[in-house]
Amino acid sequence: MAETKVLGMNAADHEISYANNSVIQKGVISKVTPIIEESVRDMFMEMGPTYIKVADLGCASGPNAFRIISQVIDTIHRMCKGQQLELPEFEVLLNDLPENDFNSVFKSVPDFIERVQEKCFIAGVAGSFYHRLFPTRSLHFVNSSNSLHWLTKLPAGLENNKGNVYMARSSPRNVFEAYADQLRKDFTNFLSLRSKEMIPQGRMVLAFMARENADPSNEDYVWELVAKSLYDLVAEGVVEEKDVDSFNLPFYSPCKEEVVEIVERERSFEINNLQVFEVDVNHLKADEKLRNKDLGYNVYMEMGENFANTVRAVLEPMICSHFGDAVVDRLFMRLATNVADALSHPMLYKGFNIVVSLTKK
Amino acid sequence: MAETKVLGMNAADHEISYANNSVIQKGVISKVTPIIEESVRDMFMEMGPTYIKVADLGCASGPNAFRIISQVIDTIHRMCKGQQLELPEFEVLLNDLPENDFNSVFKSVPDFIERVQEKCFIAGVAGSFYHRLFPTRSLHFVNSSNSLHWLTKLPAGLENNKGNVYMARSSPRNVFEAYADQLRKDFTNFLSLRSKEMIPQGRMVLAFMARENADPSNEDYVWELVAKSLYDLVAEGVVEEKDVDSFNLPFYSPCKEEVVEIVERERSFEINNLQVFEVDVNHLKADEKLRNKDLGYNVYMEMGENFANTVRAVLEPMICSHFGDAVVDRLFMRLATNVADALSHPMLYKGFNIVVSLTKK
Repeated sequence: MAETKVLGMNAADHEISYANNSVIQKGVISKVTPIIEESVRDMFMEMGPTYIKVADLGCASGPNAFRIISQVIDTIHRMCKGQQLELPEFEVLLNDLPENDFNSVFKSVPDFIERVQEKCFIAGVAGSFYHRLFPTRSLHFVNSSNSLHWLTKLPAGLENNKGNVYMARSSPRNVFEAYADQLRKDFTNFLSLRSKEMIPQGRMVLAFMARENADPSNEDYVWELVAKSLYDLVAEGVVEEKDVDSFNLPFYSPCKEEVVEIVERERSFEINNLQVFEVDVNHLKADEKLRNKDLGYNVYMEMGENFANTVRAVLEPMICSHFGDAVVDRLFMRLATNVADALSHPMLYKGFNIVVSLTKK
Repeated sequence: MAETKVLGMNAADHEISYANNSVIQKGVISKVTPIIEESVRDMFMEMGPTYIKVADLGCASGPNAFRIISQVIDTIHRMCKGQQLELPEFEVLLNDLPENDFNSVFKSVPDFIERVQEKCFIAGVAGSFYHRLFPTRSLHFVNSSNSLHWLTKLPAGLENNKGNVYMARSSPRNVFEAYADQLRKDFTNFLSLRSKEMIPQGRMVLAFMARENADPSNEDYVWELVAKSLYDLVAEGVVEEKDVDSFNLPFYSPCKEEVVEIVERERSFEINNLQVFEVDVNHLKADEKLRNKDLGYNVYMEMGENFANTVRAVLEPMICSHFGDAVVDRLFMRLATNVADALSHPMLYKGFNIVVSLTKK
């Protein structure tokens, strides 16, 4: 688990916290909502439980930590109201790595309980979802949003991925294969662990970053802007080239076909629904433009900074661990500029997510 | 719940943390161990579960957070080994107030899981145990050590308890009654909540501070040293007398008879075992003496400081909230001196605990 140690998001009291910089994550959640609702409805209709145990994997610590749980409870609430059924009890398990800021999550528990006004019991579970986390056959519904694109470790054999921090058009073929292979191992393991923890007929909805094209060498990756920013710092003499050459992200954005293949081979789950969708970053533009009617203000730069802060909240621990704390401010200022520059090329801004809804056989 | 907000212990990264200053708590736990073991053994023999859900209420954040859970698991492990049974799975719920330092608890989870090497799933549950915390009929074993002496709020009608911060020999009769009445309400509520959460035949072991004498006006209370220290600061002009007069602890140390009466009236539980025992502070003395062979060193003063730090780790939030942060260092330095002075009067050092083992009817 050593490699996962740098994956924790910045804590809630950090200047650039994940809690305050997860705009894009929110956008994804709003796309995933109807699929979660459908999945919860189907589970409740088929299983009719009087007690529902729900797990959210990779809950993080921002306002999003309770968002999906709210959707689950609201969905069941509406069904019970419509059919005049008694509300079940909910046991909710919020999971993230031990480095997550659970103190901040727990401080919101009393307000959340008051808001939902249901018999709802919240617990935090610290640990990697690439290990067993919950008792056997105990879960009715599992969600994981925006987390499964993180691998357990860097794939072996990325030495020749120079000039990049992740797969890129210019990456050698073996780099694509090494990344794909690591996802196969990690995602298969994830499915097999969850299949032990879930009750048959239980549902699971997973959403994470993906790519549009089956051919990984035919995609524009948003991480290329991070690579570009790092090499800018090399040109300025702030960072050594060999350090950037040896830096790669333990991340993978699969295409639809890869996800289907892994689920089918692992055999514990049936796919109900699977969609790849473009992450909408335009709402960012609209919001910012509305707020900044003064034409003299550099809207693009503010958007660049917003984007850089979102990325920083996720990458900062990894960057610090590899390059040292001193380069961080400079790197993300540079990233903000590069994003602002890139805004006239919307291609570079495309990001895709996959959402898959599964039933435990 | 406003009143319980100041009850959180000092966080693990606080200079005087509960984690590093809970020597007396450890002493109590060692006394309670055989009763926990007996209770767990009886539960396992009667219920024979393949899956055991355990809750520890008021777990705090020090090394003690996992201590009782270890005892529970070790006890079952020994029984299974002896009888060649398969080990059950454990689901462990560690509870404390939302202000507790759960981040520090969770950082120890991976080490704990590795040590016990059993299928053991740990979760943190933030909330007051004077509210519902767990699903209906879900718990096999419940423990609470060193927490139930804290009341939900200060009893009404303590205005004439001047010169004291808790019940004392000099307290008026109505003060004893007000305190006893608040415990009756709080402890009855606690039992009734847990009875909903526990499976019939489930066991619960509760240990908390108690008093030796049925007559509350016939006891030496260790908190009198805190009152004395506060009035010393009044004499020095650092603290206002009216502020000390209006300060009382939301705490109650019942006698054996009161506990029996409340349990019997509430009717959900049967008492298996109930003991009042003196808290052994002599091991503190022995330890310190061994470490300080240089006769020139003021052993008593170091013991006074240890004791003051233990009390500080618990009381600091309450003291700060009532008197302001500025007096804290001075107060606990004074308490250390007063404890050192009192060491020649062992009477003042007597503290009692009660442990009661219950079966859910």
